[in-house]
Amino acid sequence: MAKLQELINVSDLTTCEATAQMITKARKDGVELFFDRASNMKACPIGAESACCKHCSMGPCRMNVNSPYDRVGICGATIDTIVARNFGRMVAAGTAAHTDHGMGMLELFRDVINGKNTDFKIQDPMKLLEVAKALDIVTEGRELKEIALDLYAELEKTYTQVDGEIPMMKRVPPKTLESWRKEGIVPRGAMREIMEMMHRTAIGVDQDYENLTKQISRTALADGWGGSMVSTDITDILFGTPSPVEVEVGMGVLKEDKVNIIVHGHEPILLEAMIISAADPELKKMAIEAGAKGINLIGMCCSGLDALSRHGLPHAGNFSSTEAVLVTGAVDAMCVDVQCIKQDLKRVAECYDTPFITTNYRAKIEGALHIQLDEHDPLKCTEEIVIKAITRFKTRGKTIEIPRKTGLGVHGFSYEYINYMLGGSFRGSYKPLNENIINGRIRGVAGVVGCTNPRSKQDFSHVELVKELIRNDVLVLQTGCSQLALAKAGLTGPGAAAMAGPGLAEVCETVGMPPVLGLGSCVDNSRILIAASKMVRTGGLGETIADLPAAGCAPEWMSEKAIAIGQYFVASGVYTIFGHTFPMTKGTKFEKHLFEELETKGFGKWGFADDPLEMARLMIAHIDKKRQALGIDKARERVLMDMADRRILDATA
Amino acid sequence: MAKLQELINVSDLTTCEATAQMITKARKDGVELFFDRASNMKACPIGAESACCKHCSMGPCRMNVNSPYDRVGICGATIDTIVARNFGRMVAAGTAAHTDHGMGMLELFRDVINGKNTDFKIQDPMKLLEVAKALDIVTEGRELKEIALDLYAELEKTYTQVDGEIPMMKRVPPKTLESWRKEGIVPRGAMREIMEMMHRTAIGVDQDYENLTKQISRTALADGWGGSMVSTDITDILFGTPSPVEVEVGMGVLKEDKVNIIVHGHEPILLEAMIISAADPELKKMAIEAGAKGINLIGMCCSGLDALSRHGLPHAGNFSSTEAVLVTGAVDAMCVDVQCIKQDLKRVAECYDTPFITTNYRAKIEGALHIQLDEHDPLKCTEEIVIKAITRFKTRGKTIEIPRKTGLGVHGFSYEYINYMLGGSFRGSYKPLNENIINGRIRGVAGVVGCTNPRSKQDFSHVELVKELIRNDVLVLQTGCSQLALAKAGLTGPGAAAMAGPGLAEVCETVGMPPVLGLGSCVDNSRILIAASKMVRTGGLGETIADLPAAGCAPEWMSEKAIAIGQYFVASGVYTIFGHTFPMTKGTKFEKHLFEELETKGFGKWGFADDPLEMARLMIAHIDKKRQALGIDKARERVLMDMADRRILDATA
Repeated sequence: MAKLQELINVSDLTTCEATAQMITKARKDGVELFFDRASNMKACPIGAESACCKHCSMGPCRMNVNSPYDRVGICGATIDTIVARNFGRMVAAGTAAHTDHGMGMLELFRDVINGKNTDFKIQDPMKLLEVAKALDIVTEGRELKEIALDLYAELEKTYTQVDGEIPMMKRVPPKTLESWRKEGIVPRGAMREIMEMMHRTAIGVDQDYENLTKQISRTALADGWGGSMVSTDITDILFGTPSPVEVEVGMGVLKEDKVNIIVHGHEPILLEAMIISAADPELKKMAIEAGAKGINLIGMCCSGLDALSRHGLPHAGNFSSTEAVLVTGAVDAMCVDVQCIKQDLKRVAECYDTPFITTNYRAKIEGALHIQLDEHDPLKCTEEIVIKAITRFKTRGKTIEIPRKTGLGVHGFSYEYINYMLGGSFRGSYKPLNENIINGRIRGVAGVVGCTNPRSKQDFSHVELVKELIRNDVLVLQTGCSQLALAKAGLTGPGAAAMAGPGLAEVCETVGMPPVLGLGSCVDNSRILIAASKMVRTGGLGETIADLPAAGCAPEWMSEKAIAIGQYFVASGVYTIFGHTFPMTKGTKFEKHLFEELETKGFGKWGFADDPLEMARLMIAHIDKKRQALGIDKARERVLMDMADRRILDATA
Repeated sequence: MAKLQELINVSDLTTCEATAQMITKARKDGVELFFDRASNMKACPIGAESACCKHCSMGPCRMNVNSPYDRVGICGATIDTIVARNFGRMVAAGTAAHTDHGMGMLELFRDVINGKNTDFKIQDPMKLLEVAKALDIVTEGRELKEIALDLYAELEKTYTQVDGEIPMMKRVPPKTLESWRKEGIVPRGAMREIMEMMHRTAIGVDQDYENLTKQISRTALADGWGGSMVSTDITDILFGTPSPVEVEVGMGVLKEDKVNIIVHGHEPILLEAMIISAADPELKKMAIEAGAKGINLIGMCCSGLDALSRHGLPHAGNFSSTEAVLVTGAVDAMCVDVQCIKQDLKRVAECYDTPFITTNYRAKIEGALHIQLDEHDPLKCTEEIVIKAITRFKTRGKTIEIPRKTGLGVHGFSYEYINYMLGGSFRGSYKPLNENIINGRIRGVAGVVGCTNPRSKQDFSHVELVKELIRNDVLVLQTGCSQLALAKAGLTGPGAAAMAGPGLAEVCETVGMPPVLGLGSCVDNSRILIAASKMVRTGGLGETIADLPAAGCAPEWMSEKAIAIGQYFVASGVYTIFGHTFPMTKGTKFEKHLFEELETKGFGKWGFADDPLEMARLMIAHIDKKRQALGIDKARERVLMDMADRRILDATA
């Protein structure tokens, strides 16, 4: 562990009080956390700007980041080729993560339909019918199983199709789809796009950053409108489409007198199975016999967000808190599946005698206990984990320290619920949303999403950015670790409307919704795409997603998945800002291409800012630019005038 | 360009005389080549040992290569996780390259069967039937087209299948397949394996180097026994299975009085179409009218090897000579498709006023002329290129300098031809090969393959290694740029038998074959797998490929494809040595796993050596170890005794 005097002040590492308390405890306990390493290990300055290439053994070649056109790689690859290839591989990896996740869900769906898995059943047949209809599958007069099998076959193409356009293209606004066709970037199956991306980024293949960008977009679209979207839809069909639910979040959800089990990862099946096992009367009895008041199941990271949205399950925190929660000493078992599982969790868990269990054959950790979750019999795995947790509860040490603070908020705003919420049950519609944007009460819509990063002050940018956005009448949609940051900060409850600008506050109060809508895990960013498409189809806000007064931001992104997500938003038409760092050499043509030129082709574009207020300024300026292009900028001036007038009236009344 | 005094002696860069001459000319002309950059640009010392990770934005993290367990990445990833993940991504990229290539060939096959492409036709219906039979497709009493369509559908699974085992598993020796099943590494479709490999190497997924190695093997097997093998088979079916042909190689194949067109890349279609266009009477006439004596079509790199094997087309040189050939000034057009196309070729071509043309939408080069080859009408593209070349011939400058040296050798030893050559037309069999191995005349079989690399002296290790192997009675199979190195050095002709050891020489003289058999391009390494399987099935040399007295080597590897190829050989049971550099941190558990432990599980293993004589020593020691395990080591002692006796007799006669 780094010497104490080298350690950065805890208040500079996080704005999450519970995590801060646990960092302090870990330091006292002599346990190194990833925050400490981030403070003491310098990132490679060349790699950070993506100016190195190790795609062949003639290198690795390193460019001069201050003078990037000074030299070329051994093979002659320019800085633009190198940075674009690196970027492409990040998109390929991120898309692969969502594709593998989605294929797993689709296989589970098939097994449930075929009766090979009897622990789960279809919870939302209505959504099944809706998705089937959207894909032109005949639903009239047919058995649900029959429709479901057709849907399975159709959706599998999302991954396997080698030619043509994937099924979900039917959901894309026609003009947006037209621009993709023109550019040649309508995706085939996600596996083919990933494969071609990997091929084209190998030594001596694609060495034209603009041509590479096309495949980068195509691959990313196969994620957003393919792998991720199918995953979300199937998960809704299997485990229920979320609707608003009040949930407690933060480390305070751990209970000293209960058997605390944390599920962390990304695929819903582990946590869904764990919900069944944690409610098992026999296991409950066993826990009580062990002296506990019961079993306390808690989610973290994206698995947790899935269950939080669907079942109101408590959530202990986001990516940057997964080590910290172990420091409480109160975790009786942490089980994980795939993605964002720090390898060091195993060591930290050992320091606090917490059983740490991997459950997916794709994601083992050296030396960690592995209990394979069999999709045909998932409870076998989860029951065994519960028993391990009860055993650990019995032998708990005395150093338990649970931060008390929790946040209470409302989550579970699926695309479908927003439809219902705005339009009512009989006339579910996005029309009220569009109208309120057109009349200026809502200035625009922002997606604030993505990871937390130990090189950035945890949660800080997420919270400050969202506060600034809602203060400026921008409705905020959220997913992933960002959503948890806001939830802990108390901004996901209806009370947050008080922090919103007058126009947005008025809409929130009328509809009874918070100004910050949590949509789920990071794979659920596809819900934002569907919402955006619906806004376009509803009318009055232009013909493409690029016309909408909307913007996106991932202030503390960390994973390659975030880059894939960012790119599918950009390719779909959204101005997308990333914070903290960007894998880009400054002053290159590729930078200009992503940050400026894509917009001129009718797409969105990338942006970068480090300060949350600057992020907000850029997003709002973009929203205003789009309002102006739509000719609705005057409307907002009137509304604001009205509001100001009203306030003056109120004050003088 | 680097100052002259900093430039390394040409004789240290290459043993290819023609390339050396052109490096000297380029220096005189003031044209920088990749050799110069390799001499002046230091490879990143951390990246060279694969000890850095840029799979998320918490890093890039750099490990201490001298003390690799000193620290972990920000996320806790150990050096073993980091190196294994990097290795996995190389295999994913290499497999993607071969998969994309193979899928392209399969699509062409489908178009030819369906009559959508009329420029080509099935050249080898016998091979079509053989492959169909091997995959249990009914061939009796059916039309060829019907069989071909079934074969297409079956082979497509090689790429798209999401579950189960790919079709070519039927060709694997049963005991080898059994060991893969036990380890859980029998590949599904290549696209799924690539996708899963990319997912598992993302932040926080697979962090157990042994578990990662399984997916690394599975992905590589989906290449060797999948993507690559199907590509080779389909190419044989479409363009003919190679049989021995005498070919002239080296830059001396350029003709000062002809229109010289170089085709460089990997997919056969461009060069096959170019062969048709170059023979077009009208275009020939046009060339003659321009003052040329005709059109001189020349291959380079792997495209060239394909056409060399099938049509005896002259070949100008391997990867390290593709810039140098432009320096002759005699190239009237260079056209390329995919893979190993140095971006700098475009600039060097400009220096000599040579039209440089990209033809595949997947592989453009910034600023280069692109003429898309449409698979349904390929001649449109190739005719246009020929015309450009004729135009350039007319305006050629005066600085032409063509190295005179060429090598003459025999190439085109397909698996099928070896069968025929050894057994005769009526009793085609590998039995004579096995018998000669068992009786010790042939000590064993070596595959010497792979790239050339400007950080290694071009061709040197290839040639010295092969000389040493044949001197020790080891029969050498070759592919790729390595094959060209030996061809230029004159070791692919029957005359080379004089350089072979007494046992091997005797066999070569009896059969009338050279001791060095060129099998084709790098995608054709699958021919070696088929030959090895046949040796196992023929009997007497064990039950798995790992039992064979065989070894492989890529002395100057450069591309990620080489790593994929190496890994599929290792997973198939072959001891595989790479030279010059290896993407590995020394002293790690992952190194021990690849270099030692895999062998104990019944696979092959990796090896590393820099000196060609050391490579040979390691390979021969391994071959002898396998001979001993088979109980055939004594036989060889007897043969050598006989030979020694005979020599004594000869001397005293």
